[in-house]
Amino acid sequence: MRKFAAEKSKSLLAHRKRLAVSLQHPTASVFSSQSHHNPLPQSSILLRFLSSAAANPSAPSESMASDSDYSSTPVKIDSINPKVLECEYAVRGEIVNLAQKLQEDLKVNPDSHPFDEIIYCNIGNPQSLGQQPITFFREVLALCDHPAILDKGETQGIFSADSIERAFQILDQIPGRATGAYSHSQGIKGLRDTICSGIEARDGFPADPNDIFLTDGASPAVHMMMQLLIRSENDGILCPIPQYPLYSASIALHGGSLVPYYLDEATGWGLEVSDVKKQLETARSKGIDVRALVVINPGNPTGQVLAESNQQQIVDFCKNEGLVLLADEVYQENIYVPDKQFHSFKKVARSMGYGETDISLVSFQSVSKGYYGECGKRGGYMEVTGFAPEIREQMYKLASVNLCSNISGQILASLVMCPPKVGDESYESYTAERDAILSSLARRAKTLEDALNSLEGVTCNRAEGAMYLFPRISLPNKAIEAAKSVKTAPDAFYARRLLNATGVVVVPGSGFGQVPGTWHFRCTILPQEDRIPAIVSRLTDFHKAFMDEYRD
Amino acid sequence: MRKFAAEKSKSLLAHRKRLAVSLQHPTASVFSSQSHHNPLPQSSILLRFLSSAAANPSAPSESMASDSDYSSTPVKIDSINPKVLECEYAVRGEIVNLAQKLQEDLKVNPDSHPFDEIIYCNIGNPQSLGQQPITFFREVLALCDHPAILDKGETQGIFSADSIERAFQILDQIPGRATGAYSHSQGIKGLRDTICSGIEARDGFPADPNDIFLTDGASPAVHMMMQLLIRSENDGILCPIPQYPLYSASIALHGGSLVPYYLDEATGWGLEVSDVKKQLETARSKGIDVRALVVINPGNPTGQVLAESNQQQIVDFCKNEGLVLLADEVYQENIYVPDKQFHSFKKVARSMGYGETDISLVSFQSVSKGYYGECGKRGGYMEVTGFAPEIREQMYKLASVNLCSNISGQILASLVMCPPKVGDESYESYTAERDAILSSLARRAKTLEDALNSLEGVTCNRAEGAMYLFPRISLPNKAIEAAKSVKTAPDAFYARRLLNATGVVVVPGSGFGQVPGTWHFRCTILPQEDRIPAIVSRLTDFHKAFMDEYRD
Repeated sequence: MRKFAAEKSKSLLAHRKRLAVSLQHPTASVFSSQSHHNPLPQSSILLRFLSSAAANPSAPSESMASDSDYSSTPVKIDSINPKVLECEYAVRGEIVNLAQKLQEDLKVNPDSHPFDEIIYCNIGNPQSLGQQPITFFREVLALCDHPAILDKGETQGIFSADSIERAFQILDQIPGRATGAYSHSQGIKGLRDTICSGIEARDGFPADPNDIFLTDGASPAVHMMMQLLIRSENDGILCPIPQYPLYSASIALHGGSLVPYYLDEATGWGLEVSDVKKQLETARSKGIDVRALVVINPGNPTGQVLAESNQQQIVDFCKNEGLVLLADEVYQENIYVPDKQFHSFKKVARSMGYGETDISLVSFQSVSKGYYGECGKRGGYMEVTGFAPEIREQMYKLASVNLCSNISGQILASLVMCPPKVGDESYESYTAERDAILSSLARRAKTLEDALNSLEGVTCNRAEGAMYLFPRISLPNKAIEAAKSVKTAPDAFYARRLLNATGVVVVPGSGFGQVPGTWHFRCTILPQEDRIPAIVSRLTDFHKAFMDEYRD
Repeated sequence: MRKFAAEKSKSLLAHRKRLAVSLQHPTASVFSSQSHHNPLPQSSILLRFLSSAAANPSAPSESMASDSDYSSTPVKIDSINPKVLECEYAVRGEIVNLAQKLQEDLKVNPDSHPFDEIIYCNIGNPQSLGQQPITFFREVLALCDHPAILDKGETQGIFSADSIERAFQILDQIPGRATGAYSHSQGIKGLRDTICSGIEARDGFPADPNDIFLTDGASPAVHMMMQLLIRSENDGILCPIPQYPLYSASIALHGGSLVPYYLDEATGWGLEVSDVKKQLETARSKGIDVRALVVINPGNPTGQVLAESNQQQIVDFCKNEGLVLLADEVYQENIYVPDKQFHSFKKVARSMGYGETDISLVSFQSVSKGYYGECGKRGGYMEVTGFAPEIREQMYKLASVNLCSNISGQILASLVMCPPKVGDESYESYTAERDAILSSLARRAKTLEDALNSLEGVTCNRAEGAMYLFPRISLPNKAIEAAKSVKTAPDAFYARRLLNATGVVVVPGSGFGQVPGTWHFRCTILPQEDRIPAIVSRLTDFHKAFMDEYRD
């Protein structure tokens, strides 16, 4: 029955009518992993370019016998919201489900596979791979969770003086010191003040606490903006290709059209504004009302860091074309090369003389990334500038429907934007922890990049920032044919083979979008440093064997 | 400009085409607070019955001069998603914005109003009104936030032995003990196991961890189900009237139709299945595909607790009519009367012999409610039964797009479903804290109920459960005329006057829906007990003066 259902949802997807928008990039019919076998015309839909998770049953419920008869229950696969079917999210897709299955196998029988553990390089989740949290941040969180111990003598023995002081400060900022109360819909005002002081220190331009919306990670903030901007499939959002699939998923769920622009792999995933303009014009000529431009800087999955001059062009482009600039800046603290530096788009825009009423700009930040990598805390914020009061009121209403984001995440967002300062008791240990993580990540990025570049048919741009490498693999025709014969995208085929042989989980490039006919995978740089040599060696051995097997 | 924008959004709302579905309840044209002045025909739309927050500018940004010129920015009020405009959320609407303004006034000048503080009775937010968190829960959360102190001697001096033990258990359930990592999209498996043991202890029927989706409070779970079920405005969701506005807001945001059924105030907000059936048939005759029935038990805003026999009828009704039963059970631990008891719908369905493949049932639970009232932690879950594997896969995908809910909230959800047991060091202090809160809430409910019933023209059903009273106020015609003259719903007019006179914030009944021509407000029972007499006295004085002023 499962197989039947999968076929049915696949056919539903295939038959769903879509808006046809052709693309003018020289190599540019963006298509799905399936369309490799069943090519769509160049005028195919923008959204259909990810590997079809919907068509691949995933996350089975262990308890449900696959032969259970659900025919008398009311919800059928062809009676759910088709936007849900349409939505795809490869970083937790089929490959991760296979990995979880293998992990279960290993639990039962440690010799069941040619490796002793699964290494999840599919997602930027540092602490899952052994990274330790920053002590100061956790001390403050614990004290805010249980303020009753703040006054106890023992507390001074096990917490730093400045974490105790900071916890008192934070409690004073919370009405009634109630860390268990819903906050203001945008987040606790005092914490937004602290975040703004951090933004001001970073940018050298003023920030306003009324512009901050604290959210459970960056994802809900992205959804909120898509929800606000997208009215129908005639509304388009310009997104980089490759892109982080949150964007394609969110656009699909809100029923809009993803308008792709290509990052140029040959120039280190460069963003060429003239190409973006071409894509914009093509979309407009097809009747698409393009509302916004998404820029991910540092890049995900691509790891590049934009030059300030390039950012200025992007700002001018959005200004001139009447686009909202949605700036995904969650990797702002993950920079690994001395010749690059992070500049927020707000700083760039303000430096160019554009003020509040000149450009509509949203900056997304998260506590999941950075050197702290506190993914599980689900903290984040968006800074919203250049929207008229009546639009802001609608944003406030949307935030209110979910009441508020979690308070621990709010507190943590304030901490990462305002960490210990010179003179604070924790300052030295804090900077030591931070610098150790960042310098280790830089070394890991370089080691993995070099290893990948040494493989036959693999080229890999450097990770200037973020947490990923996105190597391109030139697969032999025989491998492509083999993938075809099992109805899988060639890079998904490669990733699956890699997982089965090594236990290393990566995400096929088709999950992010890529120039048709090219194949990639995304691999995080996050395994602990002492594990990297073994990973490199496993990867190298696998790749060699794979190429030997399929060499034309 | 603000005023202009408000008028514009109001006119946009008024002109937006909607599906017309007439109702057959004897008193049943559900309409909005505005339609009181400008009555809609009986065939009016289901969604248009809340006081129009969208039309009332709220949450102004302090920093934005109201005369700033945003004309060159791209997003206009008539170019945003009309579903966002449509959505309303009264519990954080206009009246709360006024309250926040008054609070600012008091900060600047404590004598600026005839009261010295704002008492927020608009929302079930116990800790904001001074309720203390349950010690055991907070101890465990603090230890999980900062596990580095678990082994230290001082920790035993300031934490209970069972909180330390529980923290160790929880850490052992988290892969790599990484409380800072993204978890499985449905939440940490071990915590879902614990939650299931709590559900089993409650219901006496098995629960499956694969059926649990941990979420940031109950709201995202409700949104997920609406997103899954609603394809277009032709899809309807049966909701009680009065209802908690999360439902109307979520249905509006997902573009569906709210199909109302009325709770009968005369029988203590009774739910009459024959009436629900009538509404269902009417909606179907208008071409609405009704997908689900929402039941809130204990009731919000109405406070009634359903009898088991009534629940059985509801289960049979959903089974026979092919409806998903969406059971909002977040107040399951808030029962204040000895003659009523909470039964989960799953227990009721299983007791009737209905198994996994017989009925589609979703139960929503939250850590925000109960006696613990941990609203700010944003923990919750839904238990999903009776959906075919291919539908569950789509739910898993939706959960994956946001990666996971916050880990502290996940941990807390496991704690509230599995609190200390007899023999645990914390057991006595825990039960003392719990029982003190619950018995105090029961006394407060009774005191406020009696006080309200003693007022001229006010009748108030008892709060059997939940956190609210929802008194009906018979307003004099002169008051209704006065409200009309300032273009406000009469109950909103009353609530505004109450706030201005007493500092007490309540939500007008028009924010929840009510039988046309009746007026109510929702008031929480949450102010601390020693404050209740003063609140009763202020309320009584205000009401008397109001009635004297407007008596016909």
